[in-house]
Amino acid sequence: MTPTITAFESSPDRGKGLARDMRVRWALEEVGQPYEVRLVSFSAMKEPAHRALHPFGQIPTYEEGDLALFESGAIVFHIAERHAGLLPEDADARARAITWMFAALNTVEAPIIELQTAKFAEGDKPWTAERLPLIKDRIRKRLGELSDRLGDADWLDGAFSAGDLLMVHALLRLKPSGMLDEYPNLAAYVARGEARPAYKRAFAAQLAVFTGKAPTG
Amino acid sequence: MTPTITAFESSPDRGKGLARDMRVRWALEEVGQPYEVRLVSFSAMKEPAHRALHPFGQIPTYEEGDLALFESGAIVFHIAERHAGLLPEDADARARAITWMFAALNTVEAPIIELQTAKFAEGDKPWTAERLPLIKDRIRKRLGELSDRLGDADWLDGAFSAGDLLMVHALLRLKPSGMLDEYPNLAAYVARGEARPAYKRAFAAQLAVFTGKAPTG
Repeated sequence: MTPTITAFESSPDRGKGLARDMRVRWALEEVGQPYEVRLVSFSAMKEPAHRALHPFGQIPTYEEGDLALFESGAIVFHIAERHAGLLPEDADARARAITWMFAALNTVEAPIIELQTAKFAEGDKPWTAERLPLIKDRIRKRLGELSDRLGDADWLDGAFSAGDLLMVHALLRLKPSGMLDEYPNLAAYVARGEARPAYKRAFAAQLAVFTGKAPTG
Repeated sequence: MTPTITAFESSPDRGKGLARDMRVRWALEEVGQPYEVRLVSFSAMKEPAHRALHPFGQIPTYEEGDLALFESGAIVFHIAERHAGLLPEDADARARAITWMFAALNTVEAPIIELQTAKFAEGDKPWTAERLPLIKDRIRKRLGELSDRLGDADWLDGAFSAGDLLMVHALLRLKPSGMLDEYPNLAAYVARGEARPAYKRAFAAQLAVFTGKAPTG
């Protein structure tokens, strides 16, 4: 059965690939699972029909027969559990890859989201200019620790996994800030993620929503 | 094999149960798995020996034979996968329970952590008094949506699951603020979690670290 995901009809980033449907598209491309996309407007996201799928009125959602899921991390995990290619077969290695999924979202992405919130939700506040360096230092603490752990490895723990997929996507949000370039091994790690054919197909598919060219997904 | 977890030697909350080892203790108590606890000081957490277990220098960690995990969400999931009682057997219900695990940590807990960061990391800043109501409103948005979804059900999706365990623990952090009482069904939901015998055993075990009484775990 072909799953259907939801994505922004009009994404705030205009196809830069930072919206969270990108993670789900990327995971589906990695495992070779075709999918359908239903675009949702900002106002429709807050309506009861969409909230029945996503209680917090966001994207992405994932529908497959009677199953409806939300939360990009949970959807990526669902895809990784049902298809080969995103989680190791060895039980211990699998548990470690899942650890990196949670670490990507809770420990690394959390301060990055705080930076976005400061810019977009509090951008007009008198304190924001003075706060941004504090938030950036909290992000740098995490980046330094992640950089130390990654070292000169290609991926966080052996082969590319769903943990790397979520980590690369969380870090991509920092690209415009230039902070990633302070950690050359992290910048190279993110570039390795972006160079994967599945990433490129997913990126092209989400960009096509905004350019009007035929999607590849 | 008896797993070993790490916890604060001296928790900032002095045994109020808000440290993240509490989630892991609770999960282990729910499934009836005995465990050992190794207490770690703030300085030891930042040393190479602990960072080998936890790259971000935090607690809890989980060691079981050759397997070493970090991130409370990932550890709770590992426990839930290997023992009955925290995830439904039906595949679709299981995927939905996992969705609530991610939602608890990424969507509901994230703004709650921001409130803590504002108080503890920026408590001395001139803007904090004016910022707190903004953060509280972002938390209220999530609480309102969660309250709407929960309705008059006991748990988020059928029987108590690891999703409820993480959600209740994320919400517990709001208790001192009084915000939880604005949503009576959420306050009752949290109270149901706290009333579970496994929660009580886990709470007593982490409190014993601070009172010096023999732990029950």
